[in-house]
Amino acid sequence: MPAAARTPTPRPDGSGRDHGLPVAPSSGALRPLGLDDVRVESGFLADLQSLNASTMIGHCATWVERAGWVDNFDAAVQGRLPQDRRGREFSDSDVYKLMEAMAWEIGRTGDEHLDALFRSYAARILPVQESDGYLNTMFGRPGQGARYSDLQWGHELYCFGHLIQAGVARARTTGADDEFVRLAIRAADHVCEAFGPGANPGVCGHPEIEVALVELHRLTGVQRYLDQARLFVERRGHGVLGDIELGAQYFQDHMPVREQTVFDGHAVRALYLAAGAADLAIEDGDDELLETITRQTLTSLARRTYLTGGMGAHHEGESFGQDHELPSDRAYSETCAGVASVMLNHRLLLATGSARHADTVERTLYNVVATSPAADGRAFYYTNTLHQRVPGRPPDAEHASPRAASSLRAPWFHVSCCPTNVARTVASLGAYLASTSDDGVQLHQYAGATVRAHLPQGDVVLRMVTDYPADGVVRVEVLETQSSAWTLSLRVPGWAEGATFSVAGDPEETVAPGYARAARTWAAGDVAVLSLPVAARWTWPDPRVDAIRGQVAVERGPLVMCLESVDLGADVGAVRVRTDGPPREEGGQVLVPVSTLVLGDTGWPYGAEPGAGAVQGLGDVERLVPLVPYHRWANRGPSTMRVWMPTA
Amino acid sequence: MPAAARTPTPRPDGSGRDHGLPVAPSSGALRPLGLDDVRVESGFLADLQSLNASTMIGHCATWVERAGWVDNFDAAVQGRLPQDRRGREFSDSDVYKLMEAMAWEIGRTGDEHLDALFRSYAARILPVQESDGYLNTMFGRPGQGARYSDLQWGHELYCFGHLIQAGVARARTTGADDEFVRLAIRAADHVCEAFGPGANPGVCGHPEIEVALVELHRLTGVQRYLDQARLFVERRGHGVLGDIELGAQYFQDHMPVREQTVFDGHAVRALYLAAGAADLAIEDGDDELLETITRQTLTSLARRTYLTGGMGAHHEGESFGQDHELPSDRAYSETCAGVASVMLNHRLLLATGSARHADTVERTLYNVVATSPAADGRAFYYTNTLHQRVPGRPPDAEHASPRAASSLRAPWFHVSCCPTNVARTVASLGAYLASTSDDGVQLHQYAGATVRAHLPQGDVVLRMVTDYPADGVVRVEVLETQSSAWTLSLRVPGWAEGATFSVAGDPEETVAPGYARAARTWAAGDVAVLSLPVAARWTWPDPRVDAIRGQVAVERGPLVMCLESVDLGADVGAVRVRTDGPPREEGGQVLVPVSTLVLGDTGWPYGAEPGAGAVQGLGDVERLVPLVPYHRWANRGPSTMRVWMPTA
Repeated sequence: MPAAARTPTPRPDGSGRDHGLPVAPSSGALRPLGLDDVRVESGFLADLQSLNASTMIGHCATWVERAGWVDNFDAAVQGRLPQDRRGREFSDSDVYKLMEAMAWEIGRTGDEHLDALFRSYAARILPVQESDGYLNTMFGRPGQGARYSDLQWGHELYCFGHLIQAGVARARTTGADDEFVRLAIRAADHVCEAFGPGANPGVCGHPEIEVALVELHRLTGVQRYLDQARLFVERRGHGVLGDIELGAQYFQDHMPVREQTVFDGHAVRALYLAAGAADLAIEDGDDELLETITRQTLTSLARRTYLTGGMGAHHEGESFGQDHELPSDRAYSETCAGVASVMLNHRLLLATGSARHADTVERTLYNVVATSPAADGRAFYYTNTLHQRVPGRPPDAEHASPRAASSLRAPWFHVSCCPTNVARTVASLGAYLASTSDDGVQLHQYAGATVRAHLPQGDVVLRMVTDYPADGVVRVEVLETQSSAWTLSLRVPGWAEGATFSVAGDPEETVAPGYARAARTWAAGDVAVLSLPVAARWTWPDPRVDAIRGQVAVERGPLVMCLESVDLGADVGAVRVRTDGPPREEGGQVLVPVSTLVLGDTGWPYGAEPGAGAVQGLGDVERLVPLVPYHRWANRGPSTMRVWMPTA
Repeated sequence: MPAAARTPTPRPDGSGRDHGLPVAPSSGALRPLGLDDVRVESGFLADLQSLNASTMIGHCATWVERAGWVDNFDAAVQGRLPQDRRGREFSDSDVYKLMEAMAWEIGRTGDEHLDALFRSYAARILPVQESDGYLNTMFGRPGQGARYSDLQWGHELYCFGHLIQAGVARARTTGADDEFVRLAIRAADHVCEAFGPGANPGVCGHPEIEVALVELHRLTGVQRYLDQARLFVERRGHGVLGDIELGAQYFQDHMPVREQTVFDGHAVRALYLAAGAADLAIEDGDDELLETITRQTLTSLARRTYLTGGMGAHHEGESFGQDHELPSDRAYSETCAGVASVMLNHRLLLATGSARHADTVERTLYNVVATSPAADGRAFYYTNTLHQRVPGRPPDAEHASPRAASSLRAPWFHVSCCPTNVARTVASLGAYLASTSDDGVQLHQYAGATVRAHLPQGDVVLRMVTDYPADGVVRVEVLETQSSAWTLSLRVPGWAEGATFSVAGDPEETVAPGYARAARTWAAGDVAVLSLPVAARWTWPDPRVDAIRGQVAVERGPLVMCLESVDLGADVGAVRVRTDGPPREEGGQVLVPVSTLVLGDTGWPYGAEPGAGAVQGLGDVERLVPLVPYHRWANRGPSTMRVWMPTA
């Protein structure tokens, strides 16, 4: 299926066709529109970008300095390594991820202050690169491990991956004539020397270099980078990294990627690898590999994904669980796995044109990526539980958290991959909204935005006006068009049964999930209106998900809702919800009828009768209690929370 | 309450009052009877002891040699350390735990071959002890870490603890005039020098030394060991070990033991510490501390314990979960935590006389400790899940498993604490059956056995005749007694509603859970009969245990039952059980009426209707399927399994 649908796009050339694009596949069902083409102007996603611009990026910059992770580069130059090195073995990568975020942000807004900061980082990193292109503050010096002496845990190639991604972002925004871009290319050349045919036959414990090398190939047209990515993808899964207590699936070395049927092991590693393998398949025209990755993705969505889009059910090994093993209270659902799922599904959307992947991007953006940052942008969730049993302790704003699973958002972590990952994703959000094909323009995500598209039929400019997701009406105005026929496609999310679509004043038609399409000769001033039924609704689980048997959730549009103790006025543990009517909406709030049991210990939580094990007292009478969007939870101090509520 | 009930017992003296006793408290409600007094002769527990004697101990001996963990001692003598050292930092402890098992077994059976093996180990270890008593193959030599340079992870005091426990076991079986006993005492003296007042103020990351030092104090009467145990117990919980990613509760350093209300963190560490603190409280007459430990235990039983008695709900950190967080499929329920819970509850039984603790010992022995070894005694579970979702792979009989959570029992583990822990517990099982008080004799666990008790009223010999737990009738014959009045007490387990008791031909009386007591002037030939209703029964969960909502289990007597796919003929994932009648029993089998759903993926496991997310096809018609005792599961090849079954 992907093969037939694929439409060749021109190689990047002097005309800068890949400018502003986080992902620039050379072929696929859809062609991406990047930051130059799509301006996110108002609403939920715009607010997130504003918070990123005003606070999150600066917060990350403060912390990579404060944690000493930028100073590690200075220390390398000044001969203060290893004694002055701070942070974990992969701390270089967070500086690079932050630089990628800055690059997109500079591209989006032209922020000169940020550009100066980017250049200052680049200037501090540049002298650390060795003459053969190697660059890492953790390895290779007297008193440090030798280069590539610890491929299982050392993260050197992982760091190079993020360095290269930052270089690609810089090239596609500010331009390729940049010292940091040249530095990244030298690093990639070094990787190809060190790990090419006949050289080191290893791979990195943490996939990431694969996706970066394919993108650098797309940027430069250099075949060697693609060949090296292929080597890394194909080597993996043959025990090249050895066994460890967590199992070789931890670093995706348990089985060749082509033989896997579902994602397993460390969620971020699995998803980064899948994104890289998808990129490779697209550039190689390897339909079999692309179909394999697509099938793994769809099977994982069907069996190993939380309602939020979150992936990773085990704290141990930060890994996927077995099929239907999705405990709410132990959901790991790492923020970075959400970012990686967005990356992967965006690639598969462009390759296949299937709305299923845009649905997943939306669900994951609204309920995982957007959940990580606090409302003030100064603290982040690393993991995203669906059931908080014990009120979290207020974070220490002055110190990094040693723990990934902090119960409230923390300003920084000893392993702090997530904040910079959120920052780079939010800075490049514009790229997820729209695409083109020979056929016309597709709108995948909804926000107040302006979209410019270069169609074979001529240039088109559209304006989206919407208060989505608060409101379900998406109004698309054609601002500019040639008088030629093209198709406007608007995604109808999988949950949006009963959506309606009307074009240029024609009567509304009911449209099914997938894409609502209008093929016509458009004129400036034409308007299309999609109405999505965002009213709050009950959502029930697959009977195989044991952990949430007898429970129900509420969704409103793309938003997963949750119940917080600060709204219930009691712990959420023993709540019961009545579902005989739909959830109510009043005054902008979603309300559900709940009662609470008062349960006491009998000494042993198992007994001879249903309901045994607990002393049941008189609970509250039923009352209406507001839910909040899950992404907003824990912004009002410590609370307990649950997404899935037991039914009465 | 414990204070009032406590009855002083004489200090150990030349008469060897503590001979054969794994635990010899100087006071308490009950006085233990040890291996010299109780002979387990037939039935379930005897079979387990036979398997231990014939196979398990020898299997462990083969593997500690094969893994190189005994050779580490030779390597130390021969100057081959650190280069030849094998195993983890705590591997010395497994040699000591095995020696403890051998000591009890030698005491129980007089096995000369085993005694020769014990002596040969002792001879290999002896020259490794340094002149000041220090002994560890991992630290202190050139090229190794300095002594006590890594109290967080180094396990030196943990190893000393097991060394001392083995020494105490040797002294209480073969006698104190033994070179290994003297070695253990020198080690304890070293610990007191190194960590006493004014010396190193630290504690070990893994509690264990505490319980060992109190027992050595009981053996020797030396106050210093008790004082040192008190120092270790009281130092902990003040951040003495520092913070780690898993949190300071991992090594019980988050909160002083006196302030804790429930067990938290690493389950084995929490329970070993609690056992040591209980021992300390008993010797110090510290009622407040004893009550605190008792309350922690009872609260943990009410909220943080699996139906099997298993403790530890998280794989990550091998730790207790929050209250009522007890996922079946991620039950860690480490075998060693079961052993530690037996140790703790046995101590609290002796201190308080409460049947609750003997109930817990029984539940944990039958459903955790007995579950670990395979039927052939040559493979072990480290973790004890209550829901196996994917058939395990057959174990590699020739190699140690790198993973604790092997899906089938494995012959050995890289971290192999459990097999030797099972071996030492099973070898000393006799000590859990009976006790005495000024009042008379108490029988806590049931087996074909002979019990000799020295009462103030004179010596008594009893014979238990029973096929328990297959059958619920326990017949106790008085073989010898002085013609004086004393009380015979038989435990009535908490589940045994409707049990009956008859004495010397008197009519049966219904007896409530707790102890059935008969106070009379006994004569040889008198018989008491306890009838426990062991028929299979449904067991329902506390409504706060989200993970098993809508599910039911079956117990039969003290045995938790489970459903295996090898009996169902299908995966146990989508089974439904009908509970309108009691479980059936036919031909020695427990049978339950089940049907299975056929469920297929819709692509997303959540939807707008109850039962959504899955395509439901026609399943099996209802049929009767046998359950097996949980401790016997996975003995017939790979299978899926569940203890808790969804109701129809």
